[in-house]
Amino acid sequence: MTLSIIPVEGIGEAVQGDDVASLILGGLETSGHTLEGRDVVVVTHKIVSKAEGRVVDLDDDGPDGHRHLVETEAVAILRRRGTLVIAETRHGFVCANAGVDRSNVEHSRAVLLPLDPDVSAHRIRTRLEHASAVKVGVIITDTFGRAWRHGLSDVAIGISGIPAIVDYRGTTDTHGNVLDITEVALADEIAAAADLVMGKASGIPVAIIRGLEYPDGEGRAADLVREPSGDLFR
Amino acid sequence: MTLSIIPVEGIGEAVQGDDVASLILGGLETSGHTLEGRDVVVVTHKIVSKAEGRVVDLDDDGPDGHRHLVETEAVAILRRRGTLVIAETRHGFVCANAGVDRSNVEHSRAVLLPLDPDVSAHRIRTRLEHASAVKVGVIITDTFGRAWRHGLSDVAIGISGIPAIVDYRGTTDTHGNVLDITEVALADEIAAAADLVMGKASGIPVAIIRGLEYPDGEGRAADLVREPSGDLFR
Repeated sequence: MTLSIIPVEGIGEAVQGDDVASLILGGLETSGHTLEGRDVVVVTHKIVSKAEGRVVDLDDDGPDGHRHLVETEAVAILRRRGTLVIAETRHGFVCANAGVDRSNVEHSRAVLLPLDPDVSAHRIRTRLEHASAVKVGVIITDTFGRAWRHGLSDVAIGISGIPAIVDYRGTTDTHGNVLDITEVALADEIAAAADLVMGKASGIPVAIIRGLEYPDGEGRAADLVREPSGDLFR
Repeated sequence: MTLSIIPVEGIGEAVQGDDVASLILGGLETSGHTLEGRDVVVVTHKIVSKAEGRVVDLDDDGPDGHRHLVETEAVAILRRRGTLVIAETRHGFVCANAGVDRSNVEHSRAVLLPLDPDVSAHRIRTRLEHASAVKVGVIITDTFGRAWRHGLSDVAIGISGIPAIVDYRGTTDTHGNVLDITEVALADEIAAAADLVMGKASGIPVAIIRGLEYPDGEGRAADLVREPSGDLFR
């Protein structure tokens, strides 16, 4: 079945107190779309963070102020090189600058990650489902770097109504072999796919994935986080 | 613009000597699709490897034979734990088992990575463009694990006719800030997106991405490989 990735245009800037689901529904209406059952609604974290007031003023707009904020947001620093800090966030995510982001926000301000992005995703999903009378999944994304590979890719940092991971353990292939590949990072692949229509400078914060076959299940962002003790690359 | 990801069904098993472009064109015809300009054709490496004869018989079907083969394919071993080996391939990719894969192949055989997947992608693209009279991109994929995050995701291991990375350096956002996010791993995001319609057990080895806006440029898989000296997580 062909899968469609629909950019939702016409969603403006979010400010503290905004209801993200209402912004999404407004954007859908503006662009002539309606939600369908089993759609996955992918939302960049930035509008969620802004709506939740996770924006801070930097007293010090220079490198020191930035570094201080990153250290406040981090629970562990994995690596430093120059101004680059790879840190673990309170959620367990490993990313640059502990998720502190100074793009797409006013000068001298910074956007932080939502405190609990799964809760944010759940809240958005509940409101979207109530308004549209169909079941959907919601994934909140951020843009992370990777070990070993250049370039950034969007990943899932908040999940509701869809599994984070699809587990093929015990499945056999067409040759009767038990599959080597046992766990696919479904929510991260969805996040990456949605980024293809969002773009970094175009300001489209929401995309709808339609036609995706996925198992029922309630994923959490923590399903994607490798516990430090089991991680060979900390 | 809405992006479509079209699974190409009806492509059977590949065997040594097969022309992958012909297999793709046959699958497209069977499923009633034709290529359009700027489509991106995403191909799992397994049919490429099989067509190129990159399948070996294991003299020893047990763990020793497997380990020996992995060590032959690896140029460096990064980590070992139990039977898991994280290794660097001759291409510079860091992945489990140096790309040696025993799923979707007969017992006592293993599939290796193509020797030069960019060349494979270029060959497929040239033939597809000749047959269809439109310009396309081709991406060959494999399924890799990640540091810090559970679950596997498809990535690009061979590229032709499309950039590997989109570079936003110097671009400003709607607030006039220079973007933090400078390099997006376009080819990897495409690979992940295509995997959403391929599935691991369903045996669909090709998908067409249609409607994607991407800059002109000729990427190589090496563009995505972080050189060991610049990698903080080796």
